[in-house]
Formats: sequence, structure tokens, C-alpha cells
Amino acid sequence: MTSRLVFAAFALLACVPLMAVQTPQPAVPDAQAIQKMAARFAPTEIGADLAKLSENDRRVLAKLVEASKIVDALFLRQVWSGNEAMLLDLVRDQSPLGRERLHYFLINKGPWSRIDHNQIFVPGAPAKPAAANYYPDGATKAEIERWIASLAEAEQSRATGFFTVIRRSGSSFTLVPYSVEYQPELTRAAALLREAAQLSTEPTLKAFLTKRADAFLSNDYYESDVAWMELKGAIEPTIGPYEVYEDELFNYKAAFEAYVTVQDEAETAKLQRLAGELQDIENHLPIEPKHRNPRIGAMAPIVVVNEIYAGGDGNRGVQTAAFNLPNDERVVREKGAKRVMLKNVQDAKFAKTLTPISKIVLSPEDQKALSFEAFFTHIVVHELMHGLGPHSISPGGRRTTVRQELKETYSALEEAKADISGLFAIQHMIDKGVMPKSLESSLYTTFLASAFRSIRFGVNEAHGKGIAIQLNTLLDQRGVVVNSDGTFKVNADRIKEGVAGLTRDIMTIQAEGDYAKAKALGDRMGVVRPEVQKALEKLASIPVDIEPQFKTADQLLSRGK
Amino acid sequence: MTSRLVFAAFALLACVPLMAVQTPQPAVPDAQAIQKMAARFAPTEIGADLAKLSENDRRVLAKLVEASKIVDALFLRQVWSGNEAMLLDLVRDQSPLGRERLHYFLINKGPWSRIDHNQIFVPGAPAKPAAANYYPDGATKAEIERWIASLAEAEQSRATGFFTVIRRSGSSFTLVPYSVEYQPELTRAAALLREAAQLSTEPTLKAFLTKRADAFLSNDYYESDVAWMELKGAIEPTIGPYEVYEDELFNYKAAFEAYVTVQDEAETAKLQRLAGELQDIENHLPIEPKHRNPRIGAMAPIVVVNEIYAGGDGNRGVQTAAFNLPNDERVVREKGAKRVMLKNVQDAKFAKTLTPISKIVLSPEDQKALSFEAFFTHIVVHELMHGLGPHSISPGGRRTTVRQELKETYSALEEAKADISGLFAIQHMIDKGVMPKSLESSLYTTFLASAFRSIRFGVNEAHGKGIAIQLNTLLDQRGVVVNSDGTFKVNADRIKEGVAGLTRDIMTIQAEGDYAKAKALGDRMGVVRPEVQKALEKLASIPVDIEPQFKTADQLLSRGK
Repeated sequence: MTSRLVFAAFALLACVPLMAVQTPQPAVPDAQAIQKMAARFAPTEIGADLAKLSENDRRVLAKLVEASKIVDALFLRQVWSGNEAMLLDLVRDQSPLGRERLHYFLINKGPWSRIDHNQIFVPGAPAKPAAANYYPDGATKAEIERWIASLAEAEQSRATGFFTVIRRSGSSFTLVPYSVEYQPELTRAAALLREAAQLSTEPTLKAFLTKRADAFLSNDYYESDVAWMELKGAIEPTIGPYEVYEDELFNYKAAFEAYVTVQDEAETAKLQRLAGELQDIENHLPIEPKHRNPRIGAMAPIVVVNEIYAGGDGNRGVQTAAFNLPNDERVVREKGAKRVMLKNVQDAKFAKTLTPISKIVLSPEDQKALSFEAFFTHIVVHELMHGLGPHSISPGGRRTTVRQELKETYSALEEAKADISGLFAIQHMIDKGVMPKSLESSLYTTFLASAFRSIRFGVNEAHGKGIAIQLNTLLDQRGVVVNSDGTFKVNADRIKEGVAGLTRDIMTIQAEGDYAKAKALGDRMGVVRPEVQKALEKLASIPVDIEPQFKTADQLLSRGK
Repeated sequence: MTSRLVFAAFALLACVPLMAVQTPQPAVPDAQAIQKMAARFAPTEIGADLAKLSENDRRVLAKLVEASKIVDALFLRQVWSGNEAMLLDLVRDQSPLGRERLHYFLINKGPWSRIDHNQIFVPGAPAKPAAANYYPDGATKAEIERWIASLAEAEQSRATGFFTVIRRSGSSFTLVPYSVEYQPELTRAAALLREAAQLSTEPTLKAFLTKRADAFLSNDYYESDVAWMELKGAIEPTIGPYEVYEDELFNYKAAFEAYVTVQDEAETAKLQRLAGELQDIENHLPIEPKHRNPRIGAMAPIVVVNEIYAGGDGNRGVQTAAFNLPNDERVVREKGAKRVMLKNVQDAKFAKTLTPISKIVLSPEDQKALSFEAFFTHIVVHELMHGLGPHSISPGGRRTTVRQELKETYSALEEAKADISGLFAIQHMIDKGVMPKSLESSLYTTFLASAFRSIRFGVNEAHGKGIAIQLNTLLDQRGVVVNSDGTFKVNADRIKEGVAGLTRDIMTIQAEGDYAKAKALGDRMGVVRPEVQKALEKLASIPVDIEPQFKTADQLLSRGK
């Protein structure tokens, strides 16, 4: 699944009260209003240094970008059957209003502002269809359900599967596989993947590209999903129908997306070193030894990459910062899932949103300490920390899981755990000499600025709520203090203790499966306090996210022509 | 079939030697070159006066324009499976070169310059695929033919029919009806047609729109084609899959197009009066009485309209000036075909191309006589004259047709006949008092300017060759003379005689089925003489056609929002 969460995705959830632009509700927004809406996405060049790649690998990348642009256009069609006609209409409208609409349409892949509860910004557009373009126009959910229920078992599983659309046929419905519905475009994309496979010298990449090309035409994605898990080498592409978010009717149907990326060698090496430290971190968690896991499992695959191009579902509204794939449960059972962290995208978000936020919410001295290295290290360690601490538990001798016991409070607390214990773990590794001492000065300050970035999107969702719990706890414990001018600063004397204390509190609640305590913590601490609210209100004009401009991809393609 | 011929379509045929811009062949054109290519299409507002229409009829038109924009986008997809991805790519390219490419892409509905033998103007585009997006990418014509031959008869007729695409299925092929291939978009268009039908008070319009909406979903177009032939009233829409030109592999598959038009009442009334004169014109043709047809048939349906919107195949490259539909032979046998003349489009072409041509090729005095009324009247009468004169003939007692006897010389001669006898017929009606005397002063001069407009596109095609035959004959006969400054003028003393003489000559060749004389006339007169060539060379910077901007349609749509 795509995680726009780590750094950005809460924007997809309720956040209007805190957002920069309050757009008029009844009428569609005018040129100025749309310009403001779009300005929340700061145009940013996204690319990577390809100096170490061979000429052939660069040609591979160019082919992959070309193929990705095909699925980018397919996604537009998947979102709404009216999207292509509306795009043409907007393209022809040379007025300033038309230009603004087109620009924001391209950001959102449709006439709905995704970070404003899908507010319509082009007149004539209907409300965003929950059925997207996967189900027949005008068919009700109940009708489709009845039809699916009437099918034989094998057909039912195709009907509820990722890779078919449902269409009308006479007075009933019929299934059309993606390999038919999108055949002309998929044939073109497959040809490009095969050309890329031909050019490549990396066997695992050849295998994935060839098998994915086959899948586009056979509609059977299993082998290629497996091959994707086995990818090695500099080039890490993801292309195909994956996420089901756009199908708001059933979450059955996969949207096309593509990420063309290259491995970040330094970060991947770091990650390997970290993997060797996990048991040691677990062994030093500030919790009762009995709650520690004496044998944590192998680290789930994580790869750190830089994005060359993102298209389709992978590039609409708020940018993806990391994703977990595949979604096919059979592959996940057999091969696991892989987490892909898009480092340069995170860097861009850091520069365009977190840095300006820090200049408003942090004291001048703390501002200097802000660092992307600290930010990104914390994101990576956050992911790893999800695997540490209590999971399977036995409160009162009863075998259960943290998730089961904490119910709806689980997600926010688990996110808070990963954050705060991530700080603890990094500090542990600094103290141990595994990570540089220099990181310490920026670690907490960067986290503090980042907390405002997250809470800005609202505390009605797990990440935002989890961050609020942490910020408020640290404020109470004076690891973070408010200056008289309303800015915030880290109190170096008390922050480490605060971090360890909250790590202990949360992990103990988890270990004991104590729902009542979890709920009380969330209710008391998962809120926006007045001093925080005041700071947030000063952030109105700061971008919410980036609008990527794929500089390296453009260069790759223009070289070939 | 669409006739871009009457005034414009020869552009589709070989004409590069005479065109304004000589673009470089090996590399793709740069921004300046594309700008020049596009400048051959003069941006022109196209619309109509709707003052006499009811409010409801205006709402009907708005719905029809909306539906037409959907098929406009579908056509883009039909042309090439890469068109949508390329459009998105061009839209995102903000560079001056990108802007020029996008502009010309929209004119051509793809990355090929249609009036330059489909020259590629966007890098990365393949040669324009003959198979368009109707047949599987990479399948050969022979493969498809073999597969079609292997089908049962009913399937064969669907496979070669207008309304299916052929796709791959495993190692073989399969048919996908348009109602499946384009279902989401056709469903939207059908809904709009039904809304328009609801709003309309004209029963024949309601019938056509309802039946065409049904056809979009049933894939059976027969009833709606019949209903289109029976249309009455102010609003005259044409929307659906019609022409097969874009299928250069087999000419089987219909491209989506739409014309939203309103009747031109004054011209339609004129046409009715003309219909009553046809037998009288035939009776006075300057040929031996035995060659005259004592009982000409009823006039084929012709309607004169003004265009509000044109989309899809009806708006790419050179604009359609008139069309003949439907193409379904069953409907044509039972109901005939209807010719729709787009008066305001002809007017725009007249203003943007013929008027500037006249300022270069005509003497100053003749320039003043140029008139759109004369131009358009001649176009209409040209169409009617195709029905007069010899068709079924009996040279030496053998029953045959002009077409059969004259073989490859037939088309150019028949076009020349319709032109020159059209002048004769109009003069006859002026003399008789059926048409105003004032027309006489502009008739011949306007025809003369128009001749240069036609020959400009080359004489390798019927219309151009037919015009050359006429111009050269009139020059020899001194009905047209060349001034010392290279301009041309009509010699009022001799023109009528020249027109009658050539009408007689051509119709006599036709009546006698004299292939040898027809060939000799074409070879001798169907050429570009030096004095004509000199004039043509001065026309390089004059637009070739218009680029329509649908002002009335834009107003209709913006009112509703």
C-alpha cells in the first residue's frame, strides 16, 4: 500500500480547518482561489544523480519513464470517464481561469481538489464518483453486489479482483479484464518494458520487466509481483495496477501507477548496518525486560531510492513519500512485502514545507539545528521500530495481540510508539557509536518541527493524533518548552528522559494490552493545545506539499531524441 | 462521407510543393517551424445567431455540445493508442517549443501534420499508424485478413463492420464492440443526448437523439441513422461513429465525430426554390436536346446549416465544409443520404483564405466584385448540377454510364462539369429573374479567385484538375485574361460564352462516353500554366484553412454554469 503517511498523507484526511485556503463552498472557485489552492503544492525539481549508471542503464530508465507516462494517462481515465474530455476542454481554454483550472486538474488528476474533500473546481463536473471508472455509470452498489453474488465462485473472485472492470451488457453486467479494457495502451507499455529488459544487464530487472510485460497482456500479475520482490541492482521500477483507494465503492479495483527510481546506495548501506542493530535496540528498550522480545525476526525488506518519475495513482495530489507493495495477499504470504522509501521526495517535502515551518515554530537557535539527515534517519528508523516492542502479548496469560486489545486506539498509539522509540533507538546508536554524535544536536529539533508539520493536517487520524500525544507529553515533561514569543525549543537537559519515559509508557500499555489506559492517553494528550494552535495558525501560507517536476526524466527523454 | 472537398479538402492530398512552409524532413521541426505550420490555419470564431431559438432549444444545443466533446476525446484515442499520454506530456511542457507542439497537436489530433503527408512534429512519435487504434498493435494486415477469413459469416461481417475494434486474445484475435470498448464515455454521451431529447419539443429531434443514445449502448446504429435522415426543425445534430478514413488499413472502422449545427433558414428556403428550377435548367443546357434528361429525379436532400461545434473526426486538420451521411448502405438504399452544407464554415474559409488570395491574383477592379453570396450559391448549385446532365448513356446504342466509359478521367471531368455548368445555371436563373441580377457582377470573379484557391492544393486530384481544365479553357477563349502585372480578370464580354461552351464540350464528351476526348482534354488542360504558377507562388503566406474557435458553443456552456 502506498504510504503518503510518513510525511504527507494525512492531508488526504480531514484537515480543512487548518489549511491555508478557505475556498467558497457553493460556487466553484475563481482563478485567484484556484491559484491559491494550487500554490499549496510547491513546484519542485525531482531527480537523481545518474553519474554512476551505465549508458545502457540510462536508456533503460528512459524506456521506463516512457512506459510510466502511458499508465499515467490510463489512471486519468480510471478516475472518471469524463476526465479526458474535460482535459481537452481545459487545454483549449486560454483564459487565465482556464490556465489555473488546467494546472490544478493536472495536480489532482481530475476536477476535484483531493486535499479539500474532493471539492469541485471545474464547473460541470459531478461529485467525484465513488465508483470511479471501474463500474457502470449509474449502477448502484446494491445492484453490483447482487450481480456478483449471482456469479459462480471463480467469476466472483474475478469480479471482486484487482484487474477487471465491470461493464453493462444488455440488462445485466459483464466483466472486462484490464488486458482487454486497456489493451492498446498496455500493449505499448509492455513493448517499452521489453525494450528496457533487452537493454538491461541485471537479471532480476530483466525478469521483472519481462514478466510485467507479460502480465499486462495476460492479466495475470502473480509472477511479476514475485519478480518485483526479488529485484536487485541500481534500478528499482514499480509499474502496474496496484492501489485500490480510487475505488471508493468496493476497494476492489487497482489503479495504474508507476515509480521509476534508482537505489540510494549510501542509505541502503546504512539500512543494512541498522538491521544488525535491531536486536541490540530491543534488548535496551526502556521497558521491563520481560516485555522485550529475545528473538526479533528478520527485518522486512526496505529499500531507499530516489525518484526519477512518478505517474498515475502514484502522482496525484499529495506526493507519495514511501510505499509498501505488492497488495496481492498470496505474494505477501509467500514472499513478504517490500517498503520503498523515496528519499529525494522526502527531501523535497523537507525543504519546501518543513524548513519554512521550522522558521516559524522554532526558536532561532533551534532553527539552525534542523537537518534532513536527522529527518530521514528518523523516518527510516520509525519504520524499523514498528517491528520492535510488544506485538504478541499474554495479559493475564491470555494469548492475544496488541492490535486486538487496543482496538480503535491501536493505530495512533502504534504510530506514536514508532516515532518516540525511533528517537530512543537513534540516541542509543549514537551513544553506542554506530551513528555519528553530530546527529544528536539536530535529531530532537528536527522532530519537533516535524511534529507541527504533522499536526497541521489534523489530529483525527492516527499519525496526527500520535504526534499530538508525543508533543504534549514532552511539553508537560519540559523536554520541549514554549518561549515567550510563542516559538518552541528543545530542552536538551530533559528531552532524552522524556523520550525514554514516553517510550516506556506506550510500550507498557501495549505489553499489558491496557485499552483503558490507551484510551485515556489518547483522549488527554491527542489534542491540539492553545499554544500549538497559535503556532499552527502562523503556517497558513506555507506549502502543504510539492508539485514534482521531473528534471532527470526530462533529460533522459530529451537525450534520446 | 465527409466532403472537405468543395472548398478545402484537396489539402489532404499531395500538395506540398505548393504549400507555404517547407519543413525539414529528417529532424522534427523546431518551435518556429511548428508555429509556421500552425499559422496556415487562421484562428477564426465560428458560431451562429441563436436569437430566434427558444431557451429550451439553447439548452438542447448546450447538451449536444457537451456530448460532442466526449466523442471529440474518443476520436483522439481512436487515432493512436499513444495520443492521450502524449497529450498529457505536451500539456505539462511549458516551454515555447512545448506550447507550439501542443497547439499543433490539437489542430491535428495527434503528432502528425495531416496536410504535410502526416509529417511527425513531436519527437518520439512513430509514423502515423495505418491501423489507427482499431487493430492490435503490431498485427499485420495479412494476419488480420486471415483471421477474418477464418470466421463464420456473421462474425466476418461484424469484423469488417463499422462498429467493432479488433483486439488480441491469447494467440488469436477477438472482436470488441464499440459499446464495450468505449462504454464509459458512450454512456455519458448517451445520457446527455437523452437530456437533450427531454428538453426538445421537436419530435424528429427527440427521436434521433433517443435512438442514437440507444445505439451508443446497443451498438446497433440503423434506427438512429434512419431517424437522422428524418430530422426536421432548427437543430441539426450529427453525432456518432461515421467516417472510415482514419482506418487506413481496411477503411472498415468508423471514427467518432460530431457536428452541432442549426439550420440556415434563408438558405434552406433558397434551396427549395432552386429545386423547382432544376428541370428548367436541364431543359436549357447548352447541349444537343437529345442529351438532355426530360425527367430528372427529385433533388437529393440538402440542408444548409451553421456550425456551433465540430468535434472528433469532424475537426482535425482542414475543416469540413460539407458532408454526406450516413455511410450505412442499407440506410442509403432505403432512405437516401443527406448532404449537409456548413455555411458559416464556408464563410470563414472564404474570409480567411479566398479574400486574401483575391487581393493577390485579381485585378483591383475585380477584387471589389468578390462576394460570399456568389461563392456559396455556386457551391450549392455545384452540388445540384451533379444530378443534371448525362449519367446513363447509350453510345452506339449500348446502355452504359458516363462513369464506366470515362474511367479514371471521370472524376475530374465530373467536378469540372458541376463547376462550369453551375455558373451556366446561375446565369440562366439570373436571366430568368429567379436570382438577383446583382449576382452576375460577382459570380465570375469570385469563381476566378476560387480557382486559384483550388489549384493551390495541386492538380493531381479531381477537384484541382477539374478547376485547371476550366481556368485554362477560359484563358484560351479569353473569358479570363492576364493583365500585364500578372493579375487576372474576368472579361465580361466573353465569359458567358466561354462558360456555355465548356459546359457543352464536357457534357457532350460525357453524353458520348468518349474516353479518348476526355483524356485529351485532361492532359492538355488539366495543368498548371506558367502564368498561373507565378500567381500561386505569391500565395505562400496566405492561410490554407481556419482553426475554429467555437464562440457560440462556449457561450452556451458558460451560461449553464
